[in-house]
Amino acid sequence: MQIDAPIGVFDSGVGGLTVVREMIRQLPSENIVYFGDTARVPYGTKSRDTIISYSEQIVNFLMTKQVKAIVVACNTATSYALDVLKEKIDIPIIGVVRPGALTAVNTTRNGKVGVIATEGTVGSGIYPEVIREYNPDIQVIQKACPLLVSFVEEGWTDDPVTDEVARRYLRSVQNSGVDTLVLGCTHFPLLRKAIGKLVGDQVTLVNPAYETARSLKELLIKEGIYRETGEPSYHFFVSDGADKFSRFANSILPVDLVPTRLVPIENY
Amino acid sequence: MQIDAPIGVFDSGVGGLTVVREMIRQLPSENIVYFGDTARVPYGTKSRDTIISYSEQIVNFLMTKQVKAIVVACNTATSYALDVLKEKIDIPIIGVVRPGALTAVNTTRNGKVGVIATEGTVGSGIYPEVIREYNPDIQVIQKACPLLVSFVEEGWTDDPVTDEVARRYLRSVQNSGVDTLVLGCTHFPLLRKAIGKLVGDQVTLVNPAYETARSLKELLIKEGIYRETGEPSYHFFVSDGADKFSRFANSILPVDLVPTRLVPIENY
Repeated sequence: MQIDAPIGVFDSGVGGLTVVREMIRQLPSENIVYFGDTARVPYGTKSRDTIISYSEQIVNFLMTKQVKAIVVACNTATSYALDVLKEKIDIPIIGVVRPGALTAVNTTRNGKVGVIATEGTVGSGIYPEVIREYNPDIQVIQKACPLLVSFVEEGWTDDPVTDEVARRYLRSVQNSGVDTLVLGCTHFPLLRKAIGKLVGDQVTLVNPAYETARSLKELLIKEGIYRETGEPSYHFFVSDGADKFSRFANSILPVDLVPTRLVPIENY
Repeated sequence: MQIDAPIGVFDSGVGGLTVVREMIRQLPSENIVYFGDTARVPYGTKSRDTIISYSEQIVNFLMTKQVKAIVVACNTATSYALDVLKEKIDIPIIGVVRPGALTAVNTTRNGKVGVIATEGTVGSGIYPEVIREYNPDIQVIQKACPLLVSFVEEGWTDDPVTDEVARRYLRSVQNSGVDTLVLGCTHFPLLRKAIGKLVGDQVTLVNPAYETARSLKELLIKEGIYRETGEPSYHFFVSDGADKFSRFANSILPVDLVPTRLVPIENY
């Protein structure tokens, strides 16, 4: 019975859909309930206390959907709130930081890893902390790229202005000689092509969305709650702008969505 | 007694400070209580219902400060919520749209007025509506410029990339031959120099912040509650990131701020 329960996934808005996309590819029979906090996006510039309080409301909402596990599909929410959330619930919960950090550790040859992320994620210091936990000799070069989130939200993912802003943000990271670059914000895989062109073939891009889906699958199998067969169902909820969200989701997901529904998240 | 009561001013974040700046210049003895909804910024991309609900919470908060009047120092909140708020309270309340629209009507010579604003303000159609109320022959050309808000929030107000984005947004407005351009978002006066350079001397820029302060003064005098003399006091409240807000406010206001305080606005 619990095997058929859905997995809850949440993000500040649309960025977490890059994680859902990987989950649909790698865990094709799992049922998913997604919540995007589109009324209160962005999270990357907000304080720790605010992000924890928002994340708790969302987890309370997801628990009403009888989810069997939760994915925090937002780097900022993972950075600030994952540990607090773990204390509160007794189902498996994973974030996007640890899977991405571990992959970076396994990828780098020269011991220099770059991380591009929101101000919140960079300020929390979670990527350097987790990466050094695996290997204290690795040097981590971070760079906050807040405007790139706005460009993705505007749909300017393939645009010379976006390229110019990315080039400027990435300069210091490139100059430091990294051979591995973590896309430490779930919006950034949507800029993968532009970023890849900028840093060149000698730098490997790490997409935590991919690694998170893989870690989730391992975790579900270990817990004996992985849904291996059957048709999946997908339900999408947001705190504002359901139609705009649906259009965006339909453009990046490989499935047809049922209509997105609004949730008064402040009441949870 | 009521004359000494403060004026409540609110905005989604820092943009409304351009209105406060004008109020300090034009109404130098008035006491001001400002609320910036920095936890839920931006407003420009959110739905009508959400903006009304946020604005009502903020007005409830301001009423606890015994304000004698309220200024909605945000074009999006004015567009969606001003009429609803007027029904709810019995003190004077004004927005930024009508003063700006009236000035544009009095400024244009060729009957073509441009308005640059958020998606919400543009979508509400309030500027064309109010301008045509004054003069139905005026043609209004609108353009939503959502990324410019992000650039201001990042402090990239004097930057070639910002210029390029502004140039692109403004192209259609310029091609339509307007001689007057309303800065229909309280963030945009902070880009006045860049926008002015782009559109040239033949286009007059209208800053609703300036006109709003003037209208407010007239209104207070008419109501017999204008505070003409005495030292003013200023109090600033936000829903997140008080330190960041204080730094920004100190950089654009001509007064030294007392510390900004946090308000749990969802409880109002």
